Amino acid sequence: VQDMMRWDLIEENDNPDITVERRKATFSVDKMAAFIHGGEHKLRRRREILKFVESEADFRDPIPPEFMSRQQRLENNTRKVVAMTDKSDVIDQSDFFEEGMYYQSLVMGRDLHPMSLHYVMFIPTLQGQTDDEQLDHWLPLAVSRAIVGTYAQTELGHGTNLSKLETTATYDPTTEEFILHTPSISAAKWWPGGLGKSSNYAIVVAQLITQHQSRGPHPFIVQLRDHKTHKPIEGITIGDIGPKLGINGNDNGFLIFNNYRIPRRHMLMRHAKVQPNGEYIAPSHAKLGYGAMVFVRSVMIRDQAMQIAAAAVIAIRYSAIRRQGEITAGSGEVQILDYRTQQYRIMPQFAKALVFLFAATQVKELFQKVSAQITGGNTELLQELHVLSSGLKAVVSWEVAQGIEQCRLACGGHGYSQASAFPEIYAYAVGGCTYEGENIVMLLQVARFLMKAAENVRKGSARLAAITGYLNEIGRNKCELTSWQTASDADLIGDFEHVAREQVFSAFDFLQQLQREGQSTEDAWNAASVELCKASRMHVKRYLVKTFLEKVSKCKDPELKPTLDLIGRLFMFDQICTHMGSFRKGGYMWDKQAENVSSAVYDILALLRPNAVALADSLDFSDRELHSILGRRDGNVYPALLKWAQQSELNVTEVLPTFGKFLGPMMDEARSKL
Amino acid sequence: VQDMMRWDLIEENDNPDITVERRKATFSVDKMAAFIHGGEHKLRRRREILKFVESEADFRDPIPPEFMSRQQRLENNTRKVVAMTDKSDVIDQSDFFEEGMYYQSLVMGRDLHPMSLHYVMFIPTLQGQTDDEQLDHWLPLAVSRAIVGTYAQTELGHGTNLSKLETTATYDPTTEEFILHTPSISAAKWWPGGLGKSSNYAIVVAQLITQHQSRGPHPFIVQLRDHKTHKPIEGITIGDIGPKLGINGNDNGFLIFNNYRIPRRHMLMRHAKVQPNGEYIAPSHAKLGYGAMVFVRSVMIRDQAMQIAAAAVIAIRYSAIRRQGEITAGSGEVQILDYRTQQYRIMPQFAKALVFLFAATQVKELFQKVSAQITGGNTELLQELHVLSSGLKAVVSWEVAQGIEQCRLACGGHGYSQASAFPEIYAYAVGGCTYEGENIVMLLQVARFLMKAAENVRKGSARLAAITGYLNEIGRNKCELTSWQTASDADLIGDFEHVAREQVFSAFDFLQQLQREGQSTEDAWNAASVELCKASRMHVKRYLVKTFLEKVSKCKDPELKPTLDLIGRLFMFDQICTHMGSFRKGGYMWDKQAENVSSAVYDILALLRPNAVALADSLDFSDRELHSILGRRDGNVYPALLKWAQQSELNVTEVLPTFGKFLGPMMDEARSKL
Repeated sequence: VQDMMRWDLIEENDNPDITVERRKATFSVDKMAAFIHGGEHKLRRRREILKFVESEADFRDPIPPEFMSRQQRLENNTRKVVAMTDKSDVIDQSDFFEEGMYYQSLVMGRDLHPMSLHYVMFIPTLQGQTDDEQLDHWLPLAVSRAIVGTYAQTELGHGTNLSKLETTATYDPTTEEFILHTPSISAAKWWPGGLGKSSNYAIVVAQLITQHQSRGPHPFIVQLRDHKTHKPIEGITIGDIGPKLGINGNDNGFLIFNNYRIPRRHMLMRHAKVQPNGEYIAPSHAKLGYGAMVFVRSVMIRDQAMQIAAAAVIAIRYSAIRRQGEITAGSGEVQILDYRTQQYRIMPQFAKALVFLFAATQVKELFQKVSAQITGGNTELLQELHVLSSGLKAVVSWEVAQGIEQCRLACGGHGYSQASAFPEIYAYAVGGCTYEGENIVMLLQVARFLMKAAENVRKGSARLAAITGYLNEIGRNKCELTSWQTASDADLIGDFEHVAREQVFSAFDFLQQLQREGQSTEDAWNAASVELCKASRMHVKRYLVKTFLEKVSKCKDPELKPTLDLIGRLFMFDQICTHMGSFRKGGYMWDKQAENVSSAVYDILALLRPNAVALADSLDFSDRELHSILGRRDGNVYPALLKWAQQSELNVTEVLPTFGKFLGPMMDEARSKL
Repeated sequence: VQDMMRWDLIEENDNPDITVERRKATFSVDKMAAFIHGGEHKLRRRREILKFVESEADFRDPIPPEFMSRQQRLENNTRKVVAMTDKSDVIDQSDFFEEGMYYQSLVMGRDLHPMSLHYVMFIPTLQGQTDDEQLDHWLPLAVSRAIVGTYAQTELGHGTNLSKLETTATYDPTTEEFILHTPSISAAKWWPGGLGKSSNYAIVVAQLITQHQSRGPHPFIVQLRDHKTHKPIEGITIGDIGPKLGINGNDNGFLIFNNYRIPRRHMLMRHAKVQPNGEYIAPSHAKLGYGAMVFVRSVMIRDQAMQIAAAAVIAIRYSAIRRQGEITAGSGEVQILDYRTQQYRIMPQFAKALVFLFAATQVKELFQKVSAQITGGNTELLQELHVLSSGLKAVVSWEVAQGIEQCRLACGGHGYSQASAFPEIYAYAVGGCTYEGENIVMLLQVARFLMKAAENVRKGSARLAAITGYLNEIGRNKCELTSWQTASDADLIGDFEHVAREQVFSAFDFLQQLQREGQSTEDAWNAASVELCKASRMHVKRYLVKTFLEKVSKCKDPELKPTLDLIGRLFMFDQICTHMGSFRKGGYMWDKQAENVSSAVYDILALLRPNAVALADSLDFSDRELHSILGRRDGNVYPALLKWAQQSELNVTEVLPTFGKFLGPMMDEARSKL
């Protein structure tokens, strides 16, 4: 793979500590990177796209965005997104979601931009919801960027429960128009990206009322701002919703309608229709829509995995150059990566990154396979896969957020500085716990499916597809672990299956018990919901373990395999420690085994230590993508931190106005009195 | 306590959902507030200080600080801190750290200000480290605010390990001066609050070199900026270190010396001295210094407790007015606080707030008692207390950070907005995991003490003071829990003592084993360090449980007691669930008991539900202190969110320059080609 080496990872003026680490590697970083990223072709494409992005002057920031005000950020990001979409030929459109996401992350960073929803929601919704005539009219406008659109669904008072959205679209047959209206403050559209200041169109989801009957939420395309002046059109109040935890390069907005009229044909009519006379024609069949959601979630899980990966890479590299304290007095300060506690904080996060990345790939491949197979309309496995992707989204986004913070905390004070990139990585990633389906809601959806499966197993009528099949198996009821080195993949998968199965059936029994005690089905569901979430989580973790082990079992390269095996073991034993209460239930795991599991983690950390920096390098992050002073390839962190800080907006002048206005007079007055 | 009611918690135009909640309370909120805050006097003082702060026009922000740039924030906060210190007579100086912290939180919020270190470090260090002549000279200047000082200790390359600081202070007997010098970039002073742009003095900790010998780190007082012009003095390079995760109203700074000379008497000479001829006089005895640290940490733990309290209050109130989804189809959307998963996310955080608050009070009182007792120089208990306070700081700051994020995530999308205050609460609080002793370092300090204690117990020679005494006891080896309602305080304390003792001795045995296997003491310590941290955590948690139960046992008011008991049980059973692996070790707790513990949590959540809002109210937060739209007393969240957003810096003009510069030309060009 020598020909695709884009840089020599060891350079002359690098921090010697990091060079020593790189020389210790027991495997080729490029080989490992190709395995992680799905082959040499993918790796080569990453580097080609990077090279292009680095060569374009339009993609450069005049100063680091951390020092910009929110207005400056929005302006900079608007400039860059126009340039980025001007030059999107660099992307292979057939692999848009992988290459496009990567291209976007290189150009825009984690602050996003005002056209995110134009590409992620506006165009796909036009493609999916318009009839042919509408598509012919609107799609060219959107794709050519003659209009900028967003997707306005959530309201101040409603996110998760779409059926209760309050915005109305009342059909007036006399003028053949819909009247869009916001009947209360809580009905204001709230959150859509790019809605505040940038978009001039939106797809608005509103309760359709025609012939005096409410027909539920439907999509409409609505012009928001004048083409020429960009001013909001009369009847529309619109604005930015203010700063957020992160992603502040996006003008998430609000939108209020005051009896705003749009033509009848602005309702998107691929499925439901309203005739000129107001007659409502219901869609011929309920849409499944699983497919798109599974796909979007596989993209999201990949993105989340790359965030925890970035955090782990930064923490590993920084820990290799930071020296602090002595392990043995008088023998000199050690690299903090030599502390077992530091390894324990960081390396499991690295392991999670790979586990999640492989799961995302697996879900995407499985989805493509299943989609292709479905000709006879058998959607059983697709439904299971959809359920699984909901659960993965919830488990992964939460573990990622937690893991990023562990990495940040492992970098001490400098981790708290925006120079580290941790604040932006965390803020960006943790949003994923909430959007695209709130995590607890997701876990309860998974549980709903698992409880049906459990009921069928108990009835002896279970027909479970591959992913949930283990619920119908009888595993061992004692863990057979004797030492971590001898534990087989099959044994370990069996352990996770045992615990997941136990939790699924114990939640099921709890539900039954509550109902026997007189609770309604719904109240019992609510009362048992914490246990139900636990069942969903274990179901997902069992999947993560299995997927990773399967992927690694395909690696035949003796240079890579031992390290990948260790990574998998680290993930599993760390997870067993986390869920030790469950693993000990019913005497499944005993004292000695539990001790073995903990010391397995410590042993593996020691074994991974020499390859830590090489593993970090294998994720193939460029300095541009990481965007972190602490995580620099060259390890020359301290001079770079100083250089970064000197660009602070507060350092433009030596003396701030605060001295002349407040501090100077205060000190003068005091001095005059002494 | 009627006379101290500052507001009527129920007002006419409140959100009806929150009023219903308040009417359900089974106790007087003022009585509960007095119990929580340490008596009626303390509660009255809180309200007096609040009234004063609210009456002062100088303390108002022209716009919400969330919409300010960093320059504007610093300017606004400098203005306010001068006004705040002008008017500090409102504070009872004898209770400075409690009333002062509260006063500061009301005036400054969580963004802090450029004079934080002037008060927290500069003045106390002058008081503790100067000789009498120096004190007479410098203290009046500092107290009158004729100079503004900070404390410069940490460097780019060094935080925790002070002995390796690189900045040098070399004595030159020919001119009777010290030459301060920064020998490398990693030696740049880095992080001190207020150093960047505001302070004109600093206490600088540097390696003293005199008569060609290095004498270790010593403190010096150094003028940084000219009194009149505020420009940095020649030989000094100084600036802001850039934006951070939070606390951006403070100009944390860097400082580089280029052979900068200061007079001999600018070394603080209460302890060590340098004579005019360069002779070094070592301090007569090593300072203990435990006392101040214990005190500072009790202040910090209190502050941390108030942050998780704020987060829980916001989440409870918002969950009482947010309606989303139906539990039973067709029966209307429910308050999200009715979901068991929501209660499970939020209420344990509320319980932690009280547990931590009571622990902070207890440590402070214990410290005052112990300090008073020490006349014969017996510092044994003081040392234990110091160790405990290190552990508490680590455990509390971590649990607080985690808990705040749980509360934020429980508020869905709106929790991600800065309007919620969660982003600033989290950023402010989580800093506590790192400053004032990095958490893992703290836990390992505690472990060092525990391992000595364990060794002495094993030798039969243990003389352990009160806090660690349980290590020398023999508890039961089977948990006797049958139902949570019948579990006594003593039994529950016994359970936590059992688990803490087990973990302490198992870590001790692990250390021994590693040494028997041939590792050096130091390497064994490193290899066992994760287990050592676990031991420290359990030691602290046992203390938290005991302290809370003792405090509540003193409450004789039948109106308050049952609810406080539930809070304690919630904390304990939730903690047992978290550490279930440990509680099941050696068969201490069995399946049925583990099940009882989980269902105890669910039962208690259901029992606390009717009083949730009253409990939130009992923390006595004003809207000003909470600074959260979601946590408003009146529950009228949606209109307030809209009003807040309309003040966004992006909403000052309807059309941003981004349209004219980038989006408009892009759309025009596309349209011209269609």
